[in-house]
Amino acid sequence: MDTLYMEQAIELAKLGQGNTYTNPLVGAVIVKDDAVLATGFHKRYGEKHAEKMAVDQCETPEDLIGSTMYVTMEPCNHTGKQPPCTQLIINSGISKVVIAQLDPNPVVAGKGKAYLEALGIQVVSDILQEKAEALNKHYNYFHRRQQPYIVLKQAVSLDGKISVHPKQRTYLTGEETYKRVHEERQYFQAVMAGSGTILADNPKLLPNVITDFPPIRIILDRKGQTLDFEKYQIYREAVPVWVFTKSNAIDDLPEHVRLIPDNHWTISKVVNYLQKEGIQSVYVEGGSRIHDAFLAENLFEEVITYISPKLIGGNGVSAFSSDRNVLSAVPLTLQSAEAVGEDIRIVSGRGKKDVYRIDSGNRNSQTNQKSESAY
Amino acid sequence: MDTLYMEQAIELAKLGQGNTYTNPLVGAVIVKDDAVLATGFHKRYGEKHAEKMAVDQCETPEDLIGSTMYVTMEPCNHTGKQPPCTQLIINSGISKVVIAQLDPNPVVAGKGKAYLEALGIQVVSDILQEKAEALNKHYNYFHRRQQPYIVLKQAVSLDGKISVHPKQRTYLTGEETYKRVHEERQYFQAVMAGSGTILADNPKLLPNVITDFPPIRIILDRKGQTLDFEKYQIYREAVPVWVFTKSNAIDDLPEHVRLIPDNHWTISKVVNYLQKEGIQSVYVEGGSRIHDAFLAENLFEEVITYISPKLIGGNGVSAFSSDRNVLSAVPLTLQSAEAVGEDIRIVSGRGKKDVYRIDSGNRNSQTNQKSESAY
Repeated sequence: MDTLYMEQAIELAKLGQGNTYTNPLVGAVIVKDDAVLATGFHKRYGEKHAEKMAVDQCETPEDLIGSTMYVTMEPCNHTGKQPPCTQLIINSGISKVVIAQLDPNPVVAGKGKAYLEALGIQVVSDILQEKAEALNKHYNYFHRRQQPYIVLKQAVSLDGKISVHPKQRTYLTGEETYKRVHEERQYFQAVMAGSGTILADNPKLLPNVITDFPPIRIILDRKGQTLDFEKYQIYREAVPVWVFTKSNAIDDLPEHVRLIPDNHWTISKVVNYLQKEGIQSVYVEGGSRIHDAFLAENLFEEVITYISPKLIGGNGVSAFSSDRNVLSAVPLTLQSAEAVGEDIRIVSGRGKKDVYRIDSGNRNSQTNQKSESAY
Repeated sequence: MDTLYMEQAIELAKLGQGNTYTNPLVGAVIVKDDAVLATGFHKRYGEKHAEKMAVDQCETPEDLIGSTMYVTMEPCNHTGKQPPCTQLIINSGISKVVIAQLDPNPVVAGKGKAYLEALGIQVVSDILQEKAEALNKHYNYFHRRQQPYIVLKQAVSLDGKISVHPKQRTYLTGEETYKRVHEERQYFQAVMAGSGTILADNPKLLPNVITDFPPIRIILDRKGQTLDFEKYQIYREAVPVWVFTKSNAIDDLPEHVRLIPDNHWTISKVVNYLQKEGIQSVYVEGGSRIHDAFLAENLFEEVITYISPKLIGGNGVSAFSSDRNVLSAVPLTLQSAEAVGEDIRIVSGRGKKDVYRIDSGNRNSQTNQKSESAY
């Protein structure tokens, strides 16, 4: 029965998707005498936690006495935007708490569980842990590794080119990929591109819908070539843009634009800055030199490749390229491959095969990595 | 009923796969009073045609009088390795012939049908034509276009690289791709590679099974760098190797090796030579400069891409590359995409979507080509 109620709590958690910002998705189910008394989920950043929503839903609070709460993440024990959930649980008379995963956020990190146990509440943890963790892949990664979850996204021809010419946009992928990329952006706290991409493509880098917590758009622009707030579309919408550049001596800087000055920006410095700012996830859209810099510094977790059935050849611009001398191929794990219109979308990652992803997209079944043979 | 019997004839034709060499796969079904009297197929190059096998199968030849023959390709009207099938049909008393496709081979090309009609046989053609034509994609293409069916095959990383270094093989794809490529080679009359591939990888370029009609292995080696018959594995097996090179002044040339000398080989000259030699299909395995030369001269019909979930980046060797200035991307039609072990196999072609392929591999359903949008 534990897994059945926890499955319900996981499904509830998903209802908050896209609205909880830096908070995790959390769902809760309160059960007594084999019947569900109340349910809750974290609906929106700054609003009630899942535990509070469930307790509030209970019309006769005395029913809670002796009940069990199933919750996908360890209840918090600190006062943030909301009072601590542990205190709420204790006050309500709930006698048992079943937890799927502990909260990796250092301000909680086991303290919630310990507090409940110290006050005589029975606590069971790790029920459907892997599945619950998939709800908050970026959040968990960020707090455990102290680093944003970085996804390198590219759109390439069959021969791995990203454009015909470095200074000119080539339309490779189709309409359905266009929609899919815009949808994908909203699942990240930041979307990043290099100055070359801004100069050649003049993109907006916005998601399909602009919520209260849109991704921050980040430009890596050492030389400050993109700082024309009229010319480049990325500055037009009043959604934050951060520019990593050498200078901050700019007049009439729009309010939504932040310049982050340094004469020697490197990828690791940029990632470090983002980590300190609490950015949990970054969607890096290129170009090929930027992607290669992330590869060179080993600072990424996942690669999303959209392949268009086209050929460019000759001196077209190759994906992930630079003068850097390469010594070997970096193996990744194939996570999924699917058709998106006439294109193919391939997800591959650093970790083991990811079975419980909740982001968009179907995936095909794959066998495990095989050894290689000489031809 | 016509399509039902023709479906049977098509299934019969497939039984000859891999053994008919330059001849087409053909199946035949003889029907009288709604009952199948006899069936046949072309089993092997040099042996009986499908029509003859079916007629011979009939134990009481007088039953054939007034019967109908369903045959996947127009009966021949000339004497080749076998006497003409049209005469056989007439002599047997068959009164009606239903044909799926006319034979594009100029020695037949409508003459078989015309002869039958002139002798009073009723002929119906174009029944399940598209499906029957898929049996002999290479044969039909070769005779209609007077050019071999050319497939460019590549194995690339996610960033479109074929190796870490130009002079050194990088093991990218896995064991299942290795098997699949070896199986694929047997469906072609020639397998081709550039000298760079021979020098760096030292491959055998053999199929998984060596039949009586193995693919000729072709090396494009202008400078004659691969002409070390001891060092390079490709020369070891006594299966024909043709080398397009500048010189034919070689002592002790092994019997199975043919040198084709010219000081100025171009891709179109090579293709022209192969066409004159009756080579109906070529599987071009690279390297990237050879592939790019085929692209530049627009001399290919299909591209098979195996993608390995690896990254190379930096100055790794890009697929389809050269100094050639590119002006635009060449659009292809996505034919299929599937997982092969941990790799992805993508087939794309010049023509419209190919629904009745009979070569190996499953394919996913795809929607039609969509228009593109600016990001």
